[in-house]
Amino acid sequence: MRAAIFRDGDLVVDSLPEPTPGEGQVVVKTLACGICGSDLHAFHHADAMVDAAKRSGSALLMDPSQDLVFGHEFCAEILDYGTGTEKKLKPGTRVCSMPIAISATGVQGVGYSNAYPGGFAEQMVLNEAMLLEVPNGLPTDQAALTEPMAVGWHAVQKANLTDDDVPLVIGCGPVGLAVIAGLKIAGVGPIIASDFSPARRKFAEMMGADIVVDPAENSPYEKWEEEAAPEGYDGKNWMTMMGIGPQLRPGVIFECVGVPGLIQQVLEGAPKAARIVVVGVCMEPDHLEPFFAINKELNLQFVLGYTPEEFAQTLHFLAEGKIKAEPLITAKIGVEGVKAAFDDLANPEHHAKILVEPWR
Amino acid sequence: MRAAIFRDGDLVVDSLPEPTPGEGQVVVKTLACGICGSDLHAFHHADAMVDAAKRSGSALLMDPSQDLVFGHEFCAEILDYGTGTEKKLKPGTRVCSMPIAISATGVQGVGYSNAYPGGFAEQMVLNEAMLLEVPNGLPTDQAALTEPMAVGWHAVQKANLTDDDVPLVIGCGPVGLAVIAGLKIAGVGPIIASDFSPARRKFAEMMGADIVVDPAENSPYEKWEEEAAPEGYDGKNWMTMMGIGPQLRPGVIFECVGVPGLIQQVLEGAPKAARIVVVGVCMEPDHLEPFFAINKELNLQFVLGYTPEEFAQTLHFLAEGKIKAEPLITAKIGVEGVKAAFDDLANPEHHAKILVEPWR
Repeated sequence: MRAAIFRDGDLVVDSLPEPTPGEGQVVVKTLACGICGSDLHAFHHADAMVDAAKRSGSALLMDPSQDLVFGHEFCAEILDYGTGTEKKLKPGTRVCSMPIAISATGVQGVGYSNAYPGGFAEQMVLNEAMLLEVPNGLPTDQAALTEPMAVGWHAVQKANLTDDDVPLVIGCGPVGLAVIAGLKIAGVGPIIASDFSPARRKFAEMMGADIVVDPAENSPYEKWEEEAAPEGYDGKNWMTMMGIGPQLRPGVIFECVGVPGLIQQVLEGAPKAARIVVVGVCMEPDHLEPFFAINKELNLQFVLGYTPEEFAQTLHFLAEGKIKAEPLITAKIGVEGVKAAFDDLANPEHHAKILVEPWR
Repeated sequence: MRAAIFRDGDLVVDSLPEPTPGEGQVVVKTLACGICGSDLHAFHHADAMVDAAKRSGSALLMDPSQDLVFGHEFCAEILDYGTGTEKKLKPGTRVCSMPIAISATGVQGVGYSNAYPGGFAEQMVLNEAMLLEVPNGLPTDQAALTEPMAVGWHAVQKANLTDDDVPLVIGCGPVGLAVIAGLKIAGVGPIIASDFSPARRKFAEMMGADIVVDPAENSPYEKWEEEAAPEGYDGKNWMTMMGIGPQLRPGVIFECVGVPGLIQQVLEGAPKAARIVVVGVCMEPDHLEPFFAINKELNLQFVLGYTPEEFAQTLHFLAEGKIKAEPLITAKIGVEGVKAAFDDLANPEHHAKILVEPWR
């Protein structure tokens, strides 16, 4: 089968043997697979990523010195079943799955494993038990967005929102946009979103942000305070500081950038007692001044991935039109286009989500 | 009045004018006042502390280039009232108070303010509204421990404990010991506590730690896992990793050291989904690798101080014998002894809490 392969630090198109399903597994045809920021990170910093994963007790087992096929945001079609399967879904059925492969030897990440090529190849092996049928009428492209959108829904769940919360989303790349979609479903607001890129601010509005901020022009934290302040609020008044009289509504800030320095920036900008949900995946060492967090009694909740329930819910949100993610798809390419797409995605003005269709 | 004064970066004993109570205020005689780690930090890094406070939006208003009298952990005796007071408590009554002075011009920290000398002086000005009468029978020395013990009780409150939690306390200086006392009252356990100092480990046991660890000999995190593991638990099993079968009890870790590198150490050692309560006050820039926190979905709750309710509760815990803090008092000195005591406290084997009695 044809695949975009990570080989010797480069991305090349070549043929690979078709994968064989093991016990309880199924082989599928990749219909569409999104490119994720983590794929870009793995491309540029594979060794550092594996090292960080190992040191932090992750199950990530990939060996970047051997062939790897990335791609973990996919919609696929059932081709054939392995042994010990129930075969409840007919071949030809469109499915989504969490990108996890389970076998007797352990758990591996589909798309970050030498044994389980991901969705930038024509075929993948998945587990029957993890398959979710794509609801009738949901286009394949949108079903392929289940995975990245589930990341946002999970972050929103982990925020333990209350009706009174005023959310602020820092960074409107795919992760921030997924968080905005999740916040819209959760029904909190106004949703304030901040990004330097005009294109991303437009996407943020499409996904449900009520207020967008260009941080080059205005502080998102000051904008947040304006929105969170009740009638007659005066933050400089010492009685207000003592908790007497009108107080700001509670703040929940989603850090969706994931580069060094961002957490400190949020610690500096956050209002007192804010909850900060760190969704951006910063893989490098970072620095911060704990005193900011101490003085404001901030809470940082780091999040990763989603639960099986959240993943299934997200697929249904897409099918029911509660998440309208189609505009995020800015290009569709074949496996030959993957390398150029990795470059293109560096420019936030050009693309939000690029889908790979390996059957092209 | 005689006082230990922070003047030109040094600690000197000299006379100061007796303070005058303003409207709603009261002048008290300091009976006993503990030396806090923050006092030591202010002594060595006053300018950095003021700078950090300013940048993080704190109300700390002290000017280290002018005379300062530290001391915010005190028990005192009412001498006289200012105007506009209700005078419900007779002169001679022993009182505790949160170390905060409120006037028409704002809020200041008693002991960290040029206008409000703290408890290393013979007299202080406090607010009548904040006075708590020391319950009959509670010795003055123990009442003076209300403030540091309230810090621990607050941290325990902010941890949102459940009965199933297994707590781990990193660092058994006064802050860690106060947390242990709070955990004992909260009724969770086993309480595991870790410190390099044999003396501090002994104090930890006195305060209620069920298991103490010398981190030079054993990893406190491995000890935690032993205690949190149910029958038949196997952390290396992939089904366990997937959340199937017996799981560890939830972890809540109290970081009570407050020096750079400690948070990263906790991120590395913490079990998955642990809540980390950062009680140690690190005033310097710190470094960490967010990926550890992301991969384990850790939660960091930074805390500071206490609420008025928690402060009052703590005084009553001491009076009722629920916190037996007397052994922590390892020395009592006059104002002439303050400077030497600041040096002595650097050695964890010699002292836990030194009380200053300025009337000596």
